[in-house]
Amino acid sequence: MKKFMNRAETLVAESLAGFVAAHERLVTFGADRRFVRRRSLCPGKVALISGGGAGHEPMHVGFVGKGMLDAACTGHVFTSPTPDQIVAAIREMDRGAGCLLVVKNYDGDVMNFAMAAELAAQHRIATVIVRDDVNPGGSKRSQDRRGVAGTLVVEKLLGAAAEAGWRLEELSALGEDLNGRIRTMGVALGGVTVPDTERETFVLSEDEMEMGVGIHGEPGRARVTFATADEIVEAMLGAILSDLAPDRGDNLLLFINGLGGTPVSELYLAYNSVRARLQSLGATVARSLVGTYVTSLDMAGLSITVARLKERELSLWDAPVDTAALRWKG
Amino acid sequence: MKKFMNRAETLVAESLAGFVAAHERLVTFGADRRFVRRRSLCPGKVALISGGGAGHEPMHVGFVGKGMLDAACTGHVFTSPTPDQIVAAIREMDRGAGCLLVVKNYDGDVMNFAMAAELAAQHRIATVIVRDDVNPGGSKRSQDRRGVAGTLVVEKLLGAAAEAGWRLEELSALGEDLNGRIRTMGVALGGVTVPDTERETFVLSEDEMEMGVGIHGEPGRARVTFATADEIVEAMLGAILSDLAPDRGDNLLLFINGLGGTPVSELYLAYNSVRARLQSLGATVARSLVGTYVTSLDMAGLSITVARLKERELSLWDAPVDTAALRWKG
Repeated sequence: MKKFMNRAETLVAESLAGFVAAHERLVTFGADRRFVRRRSLCPGKVALISGGGAGHEPMHVGFVGKGMLDAACTGHVFTSPTPDQIVAAIREMDRGAGCLLVVKNYDGDVMNFAMAAELAAQHRIATVIVRDDVNPGGSKRSQDRRGVAGTLVVEKLLGAAAEAGWRLEELSALGEDLNGRIRTMGVALGGVTVPDTERETFVLSEDEMEMGVGIHGEPGRARVTFATADEIVEAMLGAILSDLAPDRGDNLLLFINGLGGTPVSELYLAYNSVRARLQSLGATVARSLVGTYVTSLDMAGLSITVARLKERELSLWDAPVDTAALRWKG
Repeated sequence: MKKFMNRAETLVAESLAGFVAAHERLVTFGADRRFVRRRSLCPGKVALISGGGAGHEPMHVGFVGKGMLDAACTGHVFTSPTPDQIVAAIREMDRGAGCLLVVKNYDGDVMNFAMAAELAAQHRIATVIVRDDVNPGGSKRSQDRRGVAGTLVVEKLLGAAAEAGWRLEELSALGEDLNGRIRTMGVALGGVTVPDTERETFVLSEDEMEMGVGIHGEPGRARVTFATADEIVEAMLGAILSDLAPDRGDNLLLFINGLGGTPVSELYLAYNSVRARLQSLGATVARSLVGTYVTSLDMAGLSITVARLKERELSLWDAPVDTAALRWKG
C-alpha cells in the first residue's frame, strides 16, 4: 500500500486542513475543527448537515457551499463521525429554521446521527436516511439498502430546495420520496487497503470483478469474470432498471461515478454505453453527471446511478451550486 | 490490465462521444468528429486550439469552453493528433483574428502542430510550446523541458486573455513569457499499461517511487525509496524552487495535480504539506488548485506545479471559466 500520507493517525486531519485552505473562499472549519462548514450562513434557512467516514472524498466536504450542504462531519477512514462532532455542527449551524441531517444508511452513521439528534433535542431536527443501492436478487426491503453515490443527488436536490426556502418538513418529505426513485449499483476491479488498519478489503485476480460493491470496501454481491464495458454496463443497468422500474416518459438523471482510482476517460466511455442503452429503451436522459465524487479510497471501479426526477426536481438539480466538487451557475 | 473499455481501437472515440454527450451544453464535435469545440464562437476573438494524445483526460477536451480553449484535438493514447485534425480545427475555429496553437513540448505534438500550421498557412497562426517540467540535476535548456501539468495554467491564462480581446501577438508573447515562470515536477507510485499496445511503462516494487515522471508513462529521472508525504513534497519542492527561483514578494499559484489513480484526499494532504512549506519560506500562495486534471491514464501519482504570477495574471486566473473540468464565476 503506497499512499501520500505521513501517519495513519493524522491523515484525515491533514487532508481536511488542506481542503479547507484550498477552498477558503467557500468553507471554513467549525468549532474545534470538528466539522467543515459554509463560510456564510443564511438566517431563516434550514441547515443541511451530512457526514460520514473519511475515504469517500470529495463527498461530503466537497459538497459544502451555497446550494448544497451547510456542514459536513468527517470521521476516521470508513468510520462514522462521533455524535459530539454532529452535535457541534447542529449547534453552530441552526439559524432558527431547524436542521436536516442527511445520513447514508450504514449502521454506524445511522446510530451516531440518531444519538446526536437526541443530544441536541432542543433543536428542531429531521433526518433523511439515504438508501439508494440496488439489491440484485436479494432483499428489496428499504432498510437493507445502503446509501452510496445517490447521496450526491439527494444532497444536491435538498440543498437547492433549502436555499429556495423550503421548510424542514417539506425537505424531509422530499428526501423520503427521493429514496424510492434513485438507484445505484457499483462494480470494483480491485479491492483497497484501509490505511489505519492495513486491512485489505478483498483481492481480485486479473480476470475478476466484484459486482454490487458499496463504498466501504465490503465485498459485493457476486464475483464474476471481467468483461467489456458494454457487457458490464448491460448487467448493471439491468439490475438498476428492474429495481427502479422507470416509466417511458420519465426524466432520468444519469450519474456515472468513479470510485477513486478510475480515470475520467473510462467514466465517459461507460457513460456513452449506458446512455446509448437507455436511449435504445426509449428512456430520456434529461440530466447527466460524470466524475469522481463518491469514492472508496483509491478503488478502481465505478457506479451507475439512475434517478427518476419530477419536473420541479430538474429545476432543483439545475439551480446554482457553489461547492468545491460541484459548481454551476444554473 | 483491467479497464472499462470495449476494444482498444475504439476506446478514444467512445470516450469522446460520451464526453460530448455529457457536456452538450458546452461543447460539440467539429467537422467529421476530428476535434471537440465550443458550441458558441465569438467573432473577432483569437481562437485557442490545443490537443495531444488521449490518456491525459480531462485535459484538453475538459478545458474547452468559455474562458479557455476553443477547440481540442485528441489523438490515440499517448499519440499526437494528426495534422489534418489540427488543420480542420484551424479552418473551423478561425473567426478572423487568427489562431493560437498551444502545444505541449513532445516531439510528436510539436511536429504535427507545426505541420498543420504550414498546411493552413492562409490563416494567421502563432504557436506557444509549453515547457514547464523541472529538470532536476539535468539540462536547464528550455527546449528539453516537457509540457506537463503547467499546460493547464497556460491555457487558463491565455484563454482568459483571448476572451478579453487580446490580439494574437499579445497572447503569443504572454505564453512565451509564462514558460519561464511555471515549473512542475511529478512523482509516480506505479507505472501504467497502455491499452493499445499492452505495453507496461515501468514496474515499481512496494517500496519504490519514480521521481520526475512525465505524463506518457516514460520513466522519471530517479527511482527512489518510498517515503512520507512530507519527505516527498520536500524533495519535489526543493527541485522546483531551485529551478523557479521565486522572489520573496511573488504571488504564487500552487497547483496539486493527480495523475489519474490518486484519490483527491491524498492530493489535499499533499497540498497541505506543500503550502505549509512554502509559507514557512515566506512565500505567498495567492491562488490554489487541487484536483485531477492532467493525467497519465490511471497512474498513481501526483505533480506539483508552482507558477510566479504577475498581478494581471492573477486577474486572468480569476476570470470566469466555463468548461467541463474547470468552472468558476470569477
